[in-house]
Amino acid sequence: MVTIGLDMMGGDFAPAEAAKGVAAFLDENKEAVHLVLIGDEQQIRDQLNQYHLPADKFSIVHASQVIGMHEHPTKALKEKQQSSIAIGFHLLATGKTNAFISAGNTGAMMVGALFSIKAIEGVLRPTIGAYMPREDGSLGLLLDVGLNSDCKPENLHQFAILGSLYAEHVLKIANPRVGLINLGEEEGKGNLLAQAAYPLLKENHDLNFKGNMEGRDILINKADVLVCDGFTGNVVLKLAESIYDIVKRRNIEDEHFERFNFETYGGVPVLGVAQPVIIGHGISHALAFKNMINIACRMNATDLTGKIRERFAAAGSIV
Amino acid sequence: MVTIGLDMMGGDFAPAEAAKGVAAFLDENKEAVHLVLIGDEQQIRDQLNQYHLPADKFSIVHASQVIGMHEHPTKALKEKQQSSIAIGFHLLATGKTNAFISAGNTGAMMVGALFSIKAIEGVLRPTIGAYMPREDGSLGLLLDVGLNSDCKPENLHQFAILGSLYAEHVLKIANPRVGLINLGEEEGKGNLLAQAAYPLLKENHDLNFKGNMEGRDILINKADVLVCDGFTGNVVLKLAESIYDIVKRRNIEDEHFERFNFETYGGVPVLGVAQPVIIGHGISHALAFKNMINIACRMNATDLTGKIRERFAAAGSIV
Repeated sequence: MVTIGLDMMGGDFAPAEAAKGVAAFLDENKEAVHLVLIGDEQQIRDQLNQYHLPADKFSIVHASQVIGMHEHPTKALKEKQQSSIAIGFHLLATGKTNAFISAGNTGAMMVGALFSIKAIEGVLRPTIGAYMPREDGSLGLLLDVGLNSDCKPENLHQFAILGSLYAEHVLKIANPRVGLINLGEEEGKGNLLAQAAYPLLKENHDLNFKGNMEGRDILINKADVLVCDGFTGNVVLKLAESIYDIVKRRNIEDEHFERFNFETYGGVPVLGVAQPVIIGHGISHALAFKNMINIACRMNATDLTGKIRERFAAAGSIV
Repeated sequence: MVTIGLDMMGGDFAPAEAAKGVAAFLDENKEAVHLVLIGDEQQIRDQLNQYHLPADKFSIVHASQVIGMHEHPTKALKEKQQSSIAIGFHLLATGKTNAFISAGNTGAMMVGALFSIKAIEGVLRPTIGAYMPREDGSLGLLLDVGLNSDCKPENLHQFAILGSLYAEHVLKIANPRVGLINLGEEEGKGNLLAQAAYPLLKENHDLNFKGNMEGRDILINKADVLVCDGFTGNVVLKLAESIYDIVKRRNIEDEHFERFNFETYGGVPVLGVAQPVIIGHGISHALAFKNMINIACRMNATDLTGKIRERFAAAGSIV
């Protein structure tokens, strides 16, 4: 039985949309999944009452506090021990749940992922990725998108390994192709970081490394896993998100640009930590919550963290 | 009399489109501008023959060699002394022309701009900018977009000064607003570079600094001048360029996304060097060539390099 913790108080439309997402998930899933819904018990019950949910599929853990979207992450996590995020990480760290999902304060989720639960042995820095939609209907995984604003070459190398394992096991892409985000295609191009990361990626024969990828390659299907420092990745992600806003404002109806609605992907996985953690977008609606629960299920079903652990153990120290 | 050098052999459609652009420019401009057209004389004459151009408005300087789009920049510039780019920089460096424009090998143009002509005293690193179209019809200037892949905080500070002077004098934006590309809005956010650049920008009261700008702010009108390292800027520019390609492939007709056709802007100015240099896009058509000549005219008419020189001299050493 997989037990998944969900912060019901996170996101701009919580708990209503979280509850709706839970109902949609339980409606579709007859698998052996148990949801632990964390937040204000009364509010959660009020919301869930409108759905007819199987009582054995979920339980509620009361949290009397909420970390606001604009609170200082470290300070809030420390001072609000009874918040849904703090309790969510506590349940995860003590083995009461097998995954934790929140669309709440992103900074608090990052701090919690880094400090409440452990990084997998050998992983220098956990990372977060985001999906990049391509015209052919496929998805690329860009990482890091903001957890590590300054990176060393060995971090980028590890992001490639973590992203490849995620792409293989969760996205079901066989032998995923890895690209290094760079300002030119040729080997030897780049800033000092990219130049130094290139040989590490090239020499690791467990990776299907396809070389440098330019900005123009991000939205086409040239690589499945795109690695860069978290500063560049964050700017790219938010720029791509803003394209969707522009398309909407201009009343453009287009199937492909619909896929720039990052909300539908349901959040970005934190990779390299001992348990699955998924950080949702603040504007998450029911679909996003449902999708996040599904991703957490797949990360568990495929034992992604176990596979990451094995890979890093087998390689000794991967740098 | 302003004399502008133009590489007729640069770009994918040279010399035909360059010649067409020259004709369009001369057709519209009755000002005191003289064009120096550099390249294979016979080819240039064959192209120009189809237009009825005033003979006193241009002259041709023969160049027997061409630097190909994929040649190694430094090597090619050194070995092909009779190439249109090498001759163009020679004419500029010796005062025979007041500006130089090419849509040829970008790397060779960068190397030429950095080494054939001098940086203005006090400018640590010249930079290249690119226009970012915004929904309200305005243009932002993003810099650096690839000349400086690794930057120090003082470089970003100088890019802000150079970009502000360009925005004020060439784009005619009074008191241009400056933004620092970053992964969060709040002061203190960012990688080490952005964190260290922030106070330099904030404390320079000649700049109209508006704080950090996220990826989502690049395509909206929050700042006129957006500064970042050339690695991030290059990835952003090429990603934005690729949006236009996607829009075209999907047959979306939209006035705003038409403005993502970066070709129409006619190239990016190199700022901080002693003479105006404009680097065109390889796919430049006639419109791009005409626009580049216009930008060079405006840079001369407003004495932009003189104004940059004054600002850097007045400030002693700006870091």
